Amino acid sequence: MKKKFLTLIGEEKYTEARQEIIEFGAVDIAQLFEDVPQAKLVIVFRLLPKDLSSDVFTYMSSDLQRQVIEAITDEEVIAIMRDLFMDDAIDFIEEMPSNVVKRVLKNASEDTRILVNQFLNYPTDSAGSIMTIEYVDLKKDMTVKQALNYIKINGYDKETINTCYVLSSSRVLEGVVSLRQLVLSDDETALKDIVNIEVDSVHTHDDREEVATLFKKYDYYVMPVVDNENRLVGIITVDDIIDVIDKEATEDIHKMAALQPTEKPYLKTNIWHLAKNRIPWLLVLMISAAFTGGIIKRYETALQSVILLAAFIPMLMDTGGNAGSQSSTLIIRGLALGEIEPRHFLKVVSKELGVSIIVGTMLAVVNFLKIYLIDKAGVLVAITVSFTLVLTVTLSKVIGGVLPLLAKKFKMDPAIMAGPLITTIVDAISLIVYFATATWLLGL
Amino acid sequence: MKKKFLTLIGEEKYTEARQEIIEFGAVDIAQLFEDVPQAKLVIVFRLLPKDLSSDVFTYMSSDLQRQVIEAITDEEVIAIMRDLFMDDAIDFIEEMPSNVVKRVLKNASEDTRILVNQFLNYPTDSAGSIMTIEYVDLKKDMTVKQALNYIKINGYDKETINTCYVLSSSRVLEGVVSLRQLVLSDDETALKDIVNIEVDSVHTHDDREEVATLFKKYDYYVMPVVDNENRLVGIITVDDIIDVIDKEATEDIHKMAALQPTEKPYLKTNIWHLAKNRIPWLLVLMISAAFTGGIIKRYETALQSVILLAAFIPMLMDTGGNAGSQSSTLIIRGLALGEIEPRHFLKVVSKELGVSIIVGTMLAVVNFLKIYLIDKAGVLVAITVSFTLVLTVTLSKVIGGVLPLLAKKFKMDPAIMAGPLITTIVDAISLIVYFATATWLLGL
Repeated sequence: MKKKFLTLIGEEKYTEARQEIIEFGAVDIAQLFEDVPQAKLVIVFRLLPKDLSSDVFTYMSSDLQRQVIEAITDEEVIAIMRDLFMDDAIDFIEEMPSNVVKRVLKNASEDTRILVNQFLNYPTDSAGSIMTIEYVDLKKDMTVKQALNYIKINGYDKETINTCYVLSSSRVLEGVVSLRQLVLSDDETALKDIVNIEVDSVHTHDDREEVATLFKKYDYYVMPVVDNENRLVGIITVDDIIDVIDKEATEDIHKMAALQPTEKPYLKTNIWHLAKNRIPWLLVLMISAAFTGGIIKRYETALQSVILLAAFIPMLMDTGGNAGSQSSTLIIRGLALGEIEPRHFLKVVSKELGVSIIVGTMLAVVNFLKIYLIDKAGVLVAITVSFTLVLTVTLSKVIGGVLPLLAKKFKMDPAIMAGPLITTIVDAISLIVYFATATWLLGL
Repeated sequence: MKKKFLTLIGEEKYTEARQEIIEFGAVDIAQLFEDVPQAKLVIVFRLLPKDLSSDVFTYMSSDLQRQVIEAITDEEVIAIMRDLFMDDAIDFIEEMPSNVVKRVLKNASEDTRILVNQFLNYPTDSAGSIMTIEYVDLKKDMTVKQALNYIKINGYDKETINTCYVLSSSRVLEGVVSLRQLVLSDDETALKDIVNIEVDSVHTHDDREEVATLFKKYDYYVMPVVDNENRLVGIITVDDIIDVIDKEATEDIHKMAALQPTEKPYLKTNIWHLAKNRIPWLLVLMISAAFTGGIIKRYETALQSVILLAAFIPMLMDTGGNAGSQSSTLIIRGLALGEIEPRHFLKVVSKELGVSIIVGTMLAVVNFLKIYLIDKAGVLVAITVSFTLVLTVTLSKVIGGVLPLLAKKFKMDPAIMAGPLITTIVDAISLIVYFATATWLLGL
C-alpha cells in the first residue's frame, strides 16, 4: 500500500492517493510522508482531513515539520497550533530555526505564546520540559454524576482523562480521582468521598530521571506537576517517560564509551558535530596513555635484555582493560537502575575480590600453560606473566567496581568511570607490576 | 516513620506498628518489610488488612516472598494466590524453588494451575511471558449503558479497565473501545457504532522487544495478545513494557562490556555466578590478544634496535580501542533504537571516514608536537607514531561502525561487536601498521 500511494502521488492522482491513506493512523501516515518528494509534500499534507492533519504533524520528523510550516499559509499555521497538545507543540518549536519559531508564535494566540515562552524556560532535563497542560480538573463539591457530565463536556481535548485532578479555587492540587473510580461509583456519591488525597506529585524543576524512577517504582500511568505553591501546572504521561528512559540509557551508554552524549540521531548529525563529541575524551585518554608509555621507557634496559617481555604487553593491557570494564559496567548499570547504592561499598569490594580470585586464577592457568607449552618461553617468563595477570585482573576489578561508587558518592556521573578511563588507569598499574616482577624474578 | 515502625516491631508493639504503616501504599510497605528481622516477618505480614496483603506481596523481593510462603498456612496461600494478578503470580512462581512452587500450585484452583503451567511454557522473551489475563471483555450488541453497567459489576478485579475489548462468542478479538469513549458517549449508543475495529495486536510468541517497539512508536498504554486463531488470551500493560525496555538496555550494556547478560541484580548474585558470566569472553579475548603479541615477536629485531618504539605501544593501542568503541557504541545504540538499519551501510562508512579524518588529524598533530617537542624523540619517530595514529583511528572507526551493521544483517546480536572485540581486532592491525611504517621510515 505504501508503494501504491507513492506511485499515485508520482502520477499526481491525489484523490486516489487520499483514499489510499485515509484509513491509516497518524503515526503510519507521518512515516509514509518521509518518502514523499519535497515538492509534493505540502500538496499531500493538505489532502488530510483537518482533524487528522495536526496528529500527523505531531509525528513527522522535524525536517518535514519545517518544510510544511514554511510552505503553508498563516491560517493553516494557526489551525495546527490550536490543535497540537502543548508538549508536542514545545517539542516541535524547540527543533525549529528561529525564523520558523517567530512565524509560529506570531500566529499563536496570546495565551499560547505566554505558555510556550514559559515552557521554553524549563531546563531540558526537568519535569516541566516533558509535561503537558491538557488535563481534566474537577471540584471537590461535585457529585460523581456532575463530574462525569463535566468530563463529557470538557474532556474531548484532554491528553488523558483516565485520571482527573481535584483542585481548589486557587488551583491547588487537593486530590486525584480516576475515571475508573467514577464509573464504578454510584451517580450520587460525593466526589470528596472517593477522592484520593494521598497524591504523589513532582515539581516543574525536578529532574526528569527522578520522575522516571517514580513511574517505575509505583507503576504510574500519569503524574501531576505542581509549582512551589502546590498549584497544578501540568501532567506527565507514561509515553513521555518511556522516551526519557530511552534517552537516559543512551546518555549513559554514550558516556561509557567516552563520547559526549547527544540526543540527535546519528544519521542526522553532521561529521563536524560527530567529531566534536568524540575528540575531548580521546585527547584526554591519549595524553594519559602517554604516561603509561613513560613506564615502559623507565624499564628500557630490562626490556632490552629480555625483548620477549614486550610480546605479552598487549595481552596484559587488553585483559586488564576488559576485566575492569566488566566490573565498572555492572556497577554503573546497577547504580542507574537503583539496585546498587554507594553504601554497598564494602559488599562490592568483597564481591569483586572474590570474583577476581576465581577469574584471575583461571586465566593465569590457561596463560601459564600456553606460554610454557606452546610459546616455550621458559618457566620464569611464564610465572612473571601469569602472576602479573592475576594481580592486574584483581586490581582492575576492584578499581572498576569502586570508582563508579565513589563518583556517585561525590555527586559525579558514574557513567564516566567506565571502560576507557578504567583501561587507562589499569594499563599503567599493570605495566609497573609486570616490570617490577620481571626485574625481580628474572634478575634484570 | 520507618524508624518508628521498626522500633515498635522490636518492642513487639504490633497494634501500634500496624497503625504506623496502614496508611502507606503497597510499594512502600513492601520496601519497609526488607528491614524487618526474618523471625518477625510473618507476624508483621499478618498485620496487614486482607485486601492490602496480596498487593504488598506482589511488590516484595522474591527472598521475602519465599520466607512468607514457607511460614504461612495453606489457607493463607490460597487467599494470596486468588488475589494476585496473573502476571504477578507468574513472576513470583518463576523465582521460587521447586518445593515452594509445588506447595503454591497444590493450593491454587484447578483453573489457576492450568493457566500457570501454560504461562510457564511461554519463552522468557515472548509477549506471552509478560501479559496478564485480567481485562474487561464486552459484546458488540451491548449499548453504552449496558457496557458501563457490566464494567461496574465485573471491573473491580481487572488490572486495567481503561481499555475494553469487544469479543465474539468464540472469544475472537473484534475491536476495542476505551472507557473514555464509553463515558463520552450517550447511554443509548450501540457499542458497534463506537467500537474501533482497527486493533493492533501481538501474538503470544512475538518477541517482547518488538512489542516494546510498537508501544514506543504508537504511544500505547495497553495492547491485546491473541493466539493463532485471533482469540484474545491476554493484555500487556505499559508498566510491564517499561521493565522490558530497562531489561533490554541492560542486556545490551552487559554484552557491550564482554559480559554474559543476566537479569539478576548484582548484589543478589553470588561470586561463582558472577565469575561464570565474565570468564568466557575474557578467555576468548585473552587468547586473541596473544596473537597481537605474536606480531611484536615478529618485529623483535626492529624493536631491539629502536627500543623507544615500545613506549608508544600503549598509547596507540588505547587510542585505537577508544576510537573504535565510540563508533561501535553509536551504531549499536542506533540499531537498538531503530534509528539506524543495515541498509545505511554506505552512509555509516562515509560518515565514519569523514569523522576519522578530522579526529585522526587532530590527535596526530597533538601527538607529533608532544613527541617532537617534549619527548625529543626525533622527527622520524614522531612521524611514524603520528602516521600510525591517523591510520589506526580511521581503521578503528570504520571497523567499529561496520561490524555491528554486518552482525545485524546476518541476524547476530550487534551488541557483541562492541569495545572489547573491536579493541582486540584493532590492536593487531595498528601494531602491523606501526612496525611496517617504522621499518620503512627508520630503515630497520
